[in-house]
Amino acid sequence: MDQDRITQLLQDFKQDRVSLEQALEKLRQLPFEDLHYAKVDHHRSIRQGFPEVVFAEGKSEAQIEGIIEALLKQGHNILTTRLSADKYKSLEGRWAGMEYHPLARVMLIRHKEIKPLHGLVLVATAGTSDIGVAEEAALTAEMMGSKVQRLYDVGVAGIHRLLAYRSCLEQADVIIAVAGMEGALPSIAAGLTDKPVLAVPTSIGYGASFEGLSALLAMLNSCANGVAVFNIDNGFGAGYFASRLIKQMNRFSDNR
Amino acid sequence: MDQDRITQLLQDFKQDRVSLEQALEKLRQLPFEDLHYAKVDHHRSIRQGFPEVVFAEGKSEAQIEGIIEALLKQGHNILTTRLSADKYKSLEGRWAGMEYHPLARVMLIRHKEIKPLHGLVLVATAGTSDIGVAEEAALTAEMMGSKVQRLYDVGVAGIHRLLAYRSCLEQADVIIAVAGMEGALPSIAAGLTDKPVLAVPTSIGYGASFEGLSALLAMLNSCANGVAVFNIDNGFGAGYFASRLIKQMNRFSDNR
Amino acid sequence: MDQDRITQLLQDFKQDRVSLEQALEKLRQLPFEDLHYAKVDHHRSIRQGFPEVVFAEGKSEAQIEGIIEALLKQGHNILTTRLSADKYKSLEGRWAGMEYHPLARVMLIRHKEIKPLHGLVLVATAGTSDIGVAEEAALTAEMMGSKVQRLYDVGVAGIHRLLAYRSCLEQADVIIAVAGMEGALPSIAAGLTDKPVLAVPTSIGYGASFEGLSALLAMLNSCANGVAVFNIDNGFGAGYFASRLIKQMNRFSDNR
Amino acid sequence: MDQDRITQLLQDFKQDRVSLEQALEKLRQLPFEDLHYAKVDHHRSIRQGFPEVVFAEGKSEAQIEGIIEALLKQGHNILTTRLSADKYKSLEGRWAGMEYHPLARVMLIRHKEIKPLHGLVLVATAGTSDIGVAEEAALTAEMMGSKVQRLYDVGVAGIHRLLAYRSCLEQADVIIAVAGMEGALPSIAAGLTDKPVLAVPTSIGYGASFEGLSALLAMLNSCANGVAVFNIDNGFGAGYFASRLIKQMNRFSDNR
Amino acid sequence: MDQDRITQLLQDFKQDRVSLEQALEKLRQLPFEDLHYAKVDHHRSIRQGFPEVVFAEGKSEAQIEGIIEALLKQGHNILTTRLSADKYKSLEGRWAGMEYHPLARVMLIRHKEIKPLHGLVLVATAGTSDIGVAEEAALTAEMMGSKVQRLYDVGVAGIHRLLAYRSCLEQADVIIAVAGMEGALPSIAAGLTDKPVLAVPTSIGYGASFEGLSALLAMLNSCANGVAVFNIDNGFGAGYFASRLIKQMNRFSDNR
Amino acid sequence: MDQDRITQLLQDFKQDRVSLEQALEKLRQLPFEDLHYAKVDHHRSIRQGFPEVVFAEGKSEAQIEGIIEALLKQGHNILTTRLSADKYKSLEGRWAGMEYHPLARVMLIRHKEIKPLHGLVLVATAGTSDIGVAEEAALTAEMMGSKVQRLYDVGVAGIHRLLAYRSCLEQADVIIAVAGMEGALPSIAAGLTDKPVLAVPTSIGYGASFEGLSALLAMLNSCANGVAVFNIDNGFGAGYFASRLIKQMNRFSDNR
Amino acid sequence: MDQDRITQLLQDFKQDRVSLEQALEKLRQLPFEDLHYAKVDHHRSIRQGFPEVVFAEGKSEAQIEGIIEALLKQGHNILTTRLSADKYKSLEGRWAGMEYHPLARVMLIRHKEIKPLHGLVLVATAGTSDIGVAEEAALTAEMMGSKVQRLYDVGVAGIHRLLAYRSCLEQADVIIAVAGMEGALPSIAAGLTDKPVLAVPTSIGYGASFEGLSALLAMLNSCANGVAVFNIDNGFGAGYFASRLIKQMNRFSDNR
Amino acid sequence: MDQDRITQLLQDFKQDRVSLEQALEKLRQLPFEDLHYAKVDHHRSIRQGFPEVVFAEGKSEAQIEGIIEALLKQGHNILTTRLSADKYKSLEGRWAGMEYHPLARVMLIRHKEIKPLHGLVLVATAGTSDIGVAEEAALTAEMMGSKVQRLYDVGVAGIHRLLAYRSCLEQADVIIAVAGMEGALPSIAAGLTDKPVLAVPTSIGYGASFEGLSALLAMLNSCANGVAVFNIDNGFGAGYFASRLIKQMNRFSDNR
Repeated sequence: MDQDRITQLLQDFKQDRVSLEQALEKLRQLPFEDLHYAKVDHHRSIRQGFPEVVFAEGKSEAQIEGIIEALLKQGHNILTTRLSADKYKSLEGRWAGMEYHPLARVMLIRHKEIKPLHGLVLVATAGTSDIGVAEEAALTAEMMGSKVQRLYDVGVAGIHRLLAYRSCLEQADVIIAVAGMEGALPSIAAGLTDKPVLAVPTSIGYGASFEGLSALLAMLNSCANGVAVFNIDNGFGAGYFASRLIKQMNRFSDNR
Repeated sequence: MDQDRITQLLQDFKQDRVSLEQALEKLRQLPFEDLHYAKVDHHRSIRQGFPEVVFAEGKSEAQIEGIIEALLKQGHNILTTRLSADKYKSLEGRWAGMEYHPLARVMLIRHKEIKPLHGLVLVATAGTSDIGVAEEAALTAEMMGSKVQRLYDVGVAGIHRLLAYRSCLEQADVIIAVAGMEGALPSIAAGLTDKPVLAVPTSIGYGASFEGLSALLAMLNSCANGVAVFNIDNGFGAGYFASRLIKQMNRFSDNR
Repeated sequence: MDQDRITQLLQDFKQDRVSLEQALEKLRQLPFEDLHYAKVDHHRSIRQGFPEVVFAEGKSEAQIEGIIEALLKQGHNILTTRLSADKYKSLEGRWAGMEYHPLARVMLIRHKEIKPLHGLVLVATAGTSDIGVAEEAALTAEMMGSKVQRLYDVGVAGIHRLLAYRSCLEQADVIIAVAGMEGALPSIAAGLTDKPVLAVPTSIGYGASFEGLSALLAMLNSCANGVAVFNIDNGFGAGYFASRLIKQMNRFSDNR
Repeated sequence: MDQDRITQLLQDFKQDRVSLEQALEKLRQLPFEDLHYAKVDHHRSIRQGFPEVVFAEGKSEAQIEGIIEALLKQGHNILTTRLSADKYKSLEGRWAGMEYHPLARVMLIRHKEIKPLHGLVLVATAGTSDIGVAEEAALTAEMMGSKVQRLYDVGVAGIHRLLAYRSCLEQADVIIAVAGMEGALPSIAAGLTDKPVLAVPTSIGYGASFEGLSALLAMLNSCANGVAVFNIDNGFGAGYFASRLIKQMNRFSDNR
Repeated sequence: MDQDRITQLLQDFKQDRVSLEQALEKLRQLPFEDLHYAKVDHHRSIRQGFPEVVFAEGKSEAQIEGIIEALLKQGHNILTTRLSADKYKSLEGRWAGMEYHPLARVMLIRHKEIKPLHGLVLVATAGTSDIGVAEEAALTAEMMGSKVQRLYDVGVAGIHRLLAYRSCLEQADVIIAVAGMEGALPSIAAGLTDKPVLAVPTSIGYGASFEGLSALLAMLNSCANGVAVFNIDNGFGAGYFASRLIKQMNRFSDNR
Repeated sequence: MDQDRITQLLQDFKQDRVSLEQALEKLRQLPFEDLHYAKVDHHRSIRQGFPEVVFAEGKSEAQIEGIIEALLKQGHNILTTRLSADKYKSLEGRWAGMEYHPLARVMLIRHKEIKPLHGLVLVATAGTSDIGVAEEAALTAEMMGSKVQRLYDVGVAGIHRLLAYRSCLEQADVIIAVAGMEGALPSIAAGLTDKPVLAVPTSIGYGASFEGLSALLAMLNSCANGVAVFNIDNGFGAGYFASRLIKQMNRFSDNR
Repeated sequence: MDQDRITQLLQDFKQDRVSLEQALEKLRQLPFEDLHYAKVDHHRSIRQGFPEVVFAEGKSEAQIEGIIEALLKQGHNILTTRLSADKYKSLEGRWAGMEYHPLARVMLIRHKEIKPLHGLVLVATAGTSDIGVAEEAALTAEMMGSKVQRLYDVGVAGIHRLLAYRSCLEQADVIIAVAGMEGALPSIAAGLTDKPVLAVPTSIGYGASFEGLSALLAMLNSCANGVAVFNIDNGFGAGYFASRLIKQMNRFSDNR
Repeated sequence: MDQDRITQLLQDFKQDRVSLEQALEKLRQLPFEDLHYAKVDHHRSIRQGFPEVVFAEGKSEAQIEGIIEALLKQGHNILTTRLSADKYKSLEGRWAGMEYHPLARVMLIRHKEIKPLHGLVLVATAGTSDIGVAEEAALTAEMMGSKVQRLYDVGVAGIHRLLAYRSCLEQADVIIAVAGMEGALPSIAAGLTDKPVLAVPTSIGYGASFEGLSALLAMLNSCANGVAVFNIDNGFGAGYFASRLIKQMNRFSDNR
């Protein structure tokens, strides 16, 4: 794949099939393809292990289409986040294998097998209304090769619901806890286990939740240790981070 | 007491011992004594059942002294809140029976027996650092005649601590839950019981607690039902409200 | 009822009609029914005395329908809040006995008699625009068994309007004061009576009301004692809390 | 005084005692004296009818002294606001006739008679702790020639206190209402009378008053008409504005 | 008018045509008419000299119609603010003499002659986009009997525009300065004249204007003396306050 | 052009073809044309070197049309910003030479040649979604006579993209760096070069970007020296400022 | 150890050396020791693998001393954070082996060997002023058994400083990036590597950093993937979380 | 100079006096000297033309001393900002040629002649209290080689003061406008001239200035074009940016 193409280039240079200037030029253009309005970063899968993700919010449909096209040409799987149903409709049927998840506002194209990683990500929500954000996290982690377990509507208004599923916390390697309103779920989860807890505040709530601010502040101020926080409604960020952790665990384990 | 003085006045009027004009004049001046810088409200104990409380913050020592003096002359017990150690020192020994509680910054003078009410107020804190605010609540409730039980440092980082004391929640008629940081204690408590929970956010916490804002918002957005919220660090407010509830329960019970 | 089902189970166990393992298993699954996207909490009516409420905002119509269905099967009355007119329309006629209150955005199904409680809740508003929130509070309290009196448009711009209805304050056991803009109504009410005042800020107002922030802060900072605060536009929360108080008063009175 | 000096200059020019260039030069330098660090505005008493006020906060003692010296040389009375006790001490005895008001942090030198205006300014406060700000307003208005009546500690926690002094509202031409916490006093006052109400929020209050923000927002959102708002703790601003109103009333009346 | 009706009632009582109880009952109900959802305050024109204004935002069309109907029956002129074009359309033609001002979102019915007051209100705006708010102020002041001069688009980006109209400032008795963005117009105006300046921030501006917050803060912090501030976009408030000032000037002048 | 008209007027006056009064009158009215709702500032092109720009947000279509008409009559080129597609449609075809840029929401009429300035403005964006704001900046600078180079999607998530174009930074005289989210691009750019960097935050981002606040604060707090900041989404402001700099460089260079 | 004590208890129960009631009682009190003002959580080292940490801010010296005493009796190492130099002085010499780190405000007692974990934590800062927070993180991670490398003053104002140490990023298993001001360091680091980056905003900065808010928001809005955020100045939180990750990696690796 | 040292190194490499490896090593270490707690950036004077500035806030005295020592060894002039009087006292006399400016909190060592640039920077303040910030700007610009003119206390409360000095605006190449409170000075200045205006908000003001927020927002929202904004109280930033502009003007002019 990408790594192969670079290796090939380097060997071509060593064996004088390309000049130094040519080699430098190719290496320099390799990392990103310039669509003028977007520098598509093909290099990232070498540098970071995952392909570039298309963040659809604020991009026109033509821009989204152009970027996906460029990524597909390089053979990448596609993960598009924040894709509204309206924008999806205008793209529907454009490429083979498109899957659209309306709650999560995520569009996937999985034409290349994803190499599975060892390790389990648990995605929990406080309420039913938080599921959209949680699904963005879960789908992202799955696209990155992680196994994911979902545990929804276990918020602190009825603490017995979480306690009943306590073994889920124990079996996971990383926990993503998604909550709006008072955002207490990550604190409770982190108090019940010693696994790293990734906290995602959501914009679900009444007036003074201020579109997620209350949950965000609560999570940043968690009295329980072992909680790291992501942006409001940023399911993608937590799913991606969880996968970095899982990948680092695999690499760590392989190196010992 | 006060009620007696008014009754006397009305009877004097009925029996023509005072004229209408005199009666009106006396009634009008009765409610508050004008110290120019403060209108001391002796009438409140009739209207609301509790004496006026002296809020010491922002008042000079001379003003505090003058107001207490006026209240003592009417025979009231004294509850002074937000009295700094420095201001207390300048007043120390001024009247008999002064008690100063430095953590709560409360000064009391109990020279008149407080009529006990039926019913129990539980005051719980999430952490040790919240005890000052909790004590302000507890002392206030006690001055108003309520029985108070204290349960400190049972925050959600170790949920088993609260679960161990679950029977305390069941025995109380009203629960005051005091917490800083992520402010989750009231939500948990309200999920475990059906007693009314009075939530007091405190200014305890790291940077983005913004001096209690995080706990305040969390409590206002509690996903658990049955939580009412007070101002940041306002232990007095919750203690006073709890006593109103207890008093109303007693009255309600007496009237049936 | 629910309590009966648990009692039955325990007696079955004692008389060896079910094994320990079976008993534990049933008890553990009893509390909530797992719809995957929602853990419906049938246990709450035992734990807290009221059935679970469906908070419709942020839930899809299919999710709302599923949750109501599960609750109806258990024989619960239904209280659905924050149900937009659009969502209601898509559910209209689905079950017998649906009542929709458009101003309050509340949908009720009352097929089971509600056991009346002693005690009166007064719901007052500062202005006409606050009535939607007030009705959410009033309907909630009524569903919980409380008697409710409504007193609308008695705000402080014309203080004589409130003074004219002063006896209403005296007759109530709990007062819910709903106000936007400068949010002064709860302070005035709490100064006129010694009943507990539940303050609900609304998002009604001009620019710097910041969608209810001004009223919220005013209520949190009330100089009058005896005011507890709820989230912006959270009529439900205040109605529910009032009912907890009324219920606790009934229980308190019964126990003496 | 100043007006005389300008008239003299213009007549000198007409009668060729000074050239056009000299006249222009003098007129141009007249308005302010350049102390390098401050342009003292002697012209303002012509333009606006009151002398420049020295705002001491953030100025060094040397700067304050220099500015006062320049103003005294022109024969102005002196009104210095926000002068801390420490800074006052370092200036004490420097000029004859200095009066320092510690609560208001105001220093006055009244060596020239102040021409009295017709009309009455009422300065009311919600609490005792608001008196410092109110005194800054009252002293400012008095220095500008207004008559001032003070009415302190008549906040809404005991609405009968304000109602008892209702005639004061009726006798005033302008009302300054000073309040912290929930800041409801101006709303109540404006509902009881048709006099213009100048609202001054103060930084007095518990946690979520956010140093006067709650009172400021409440006043800006007053549901009562006829309320204009000033900066937090800006007693001076309200006192000055009230005097402008009084002065305009006098002028208006004189011109009819 | 209203005053006549009260006088009649009092004379009826004196001459025993109505009993004490009847008189009290009538007096008590006179002040406001109870439409259940609104207490229409007919008494206000006695208490404050202007009729009640209908604030249409947040009210249903049926509520608006009912309130206007009640006011018209008492013979009042009608001033309805914040009436959206949509709501206006549904009311159009309902009563004779309706005038709708779409920029100001104001609807007027002037069937009764307005008694003119002496004195002039100048309404100035910084930009063209601020005119809607300014017209709300101007129409309000005119409905209250004031003469109004309009001076639009004289903001500080081209200070010569304001300087060119300086005489307008001098001729006015009160100045209303309306500005969004950096909100500097009131400061400049107050520096150029000694007339009271009423500052109205508007929500006009780019991103960090935060919907009028920047202009609001700028006006509250004006370094020029003589500026009083109103809520964001609150043209009505300033127009009403200006009329109170004008009315007080007339009364003041009449009493001397 | 304008300068010619003033020169003509002055010479007419010198040669007594117009009186002093006429000259003054004409000069005074010259600067702006009074459309009542807008004072069109023809003088600005003399005072500041660029014509007035039409800020379309918050103006009605009739107002926009009137202002453009007045500017065109004076022979100005037209730069209209914040013109929504809807408003543009209603104006389309109204004048010859209209160009509409939908991403930038800018409408131009270039019927008069723009005098080119020496010097180059580089406009860079962090992401594809920031291009709309960047184009507003670029088009503004071009209308003012600057040469502009565009460099889009070089944000810090892949720092190699910016490093690859480092020579662009070196060739520019001024750099406009446009970024949303964490807003780090200006800091990086200012660290890599010693050219002045104009930072424009955009409202692009997830929840806690708070519509551009995060990028705005990051830019204001840049640890790299040489960064000046503009309002959120204010591409116009940065493009205009860049042109002032370029113009001042040209003038500076011409004067040496 | 603790685990030993529990095992012992269970075996005692099995062999009837203690009754069921005694066993339950001991188990219930084991988890925490009740000092009244603090429930010391000895159980946590079983539940979470690390001892309880003493957060000294807001606790009195007596409380701190009591909690440390209780922990030492159980044989724990001690990690005390947010211990001011003043409070440290009052405790100095109280126990053997106290180490105080003034920049980090951390006090350690290491009398028991810490079991080393495999894996490396890199702690980087943007500036010199961020070192205090970074040291709190580094010391915490070391107390939990991690190896730590420090890399200070590599902020984005001179991006070459970070690029020069790029191999450090590659060698680490987890990266803690500490930055104030515009908070861009974590974004850059996460763009250069695929290791998980823990971002700690600090309160270092000029005015509009608002005590760390700017850095906090920037980090939450990082356009680079793989960044998790902690509270302002919360070095402890990041150090603790990093150790959880390292521990989980070790466990993960051991289990394969 | 630094540039000389690099040239020397490159020539040494070309003439084989150092190996490739040695050359690379030296080049890599040249840019910054690693004091562990600070990477002193000697390279910046090549990259950016000015030496590194020592930002003293949040650094210990030992750290400040070490950094200055390292810079002096390389022959740099020293500019230390935010150096409190206390810290200065502990360093006083440490090096020859130290100048301390207490108002600006700036310490300078000028032992090397500063190469003067053509062009003039005008530094203006709205009030006397803003002078500290202005002096930080002025001293910074002077250290960078610019000529500086100071114009203090010309705020908008008396617009004639600024108009009197209008020629100063015309003579400057760049204008730094420093203001607190309502922050209108930059807007006025930018409306009067076509020079670039650098706006520095200060934290001077009454309550709702929120420590400079009001001035910051006002400046960001300036309706006058040609205003760029800096952080609150960030005189250094504006002085540095002005010097970059001046330097770029010189370079631009030299290149034509």
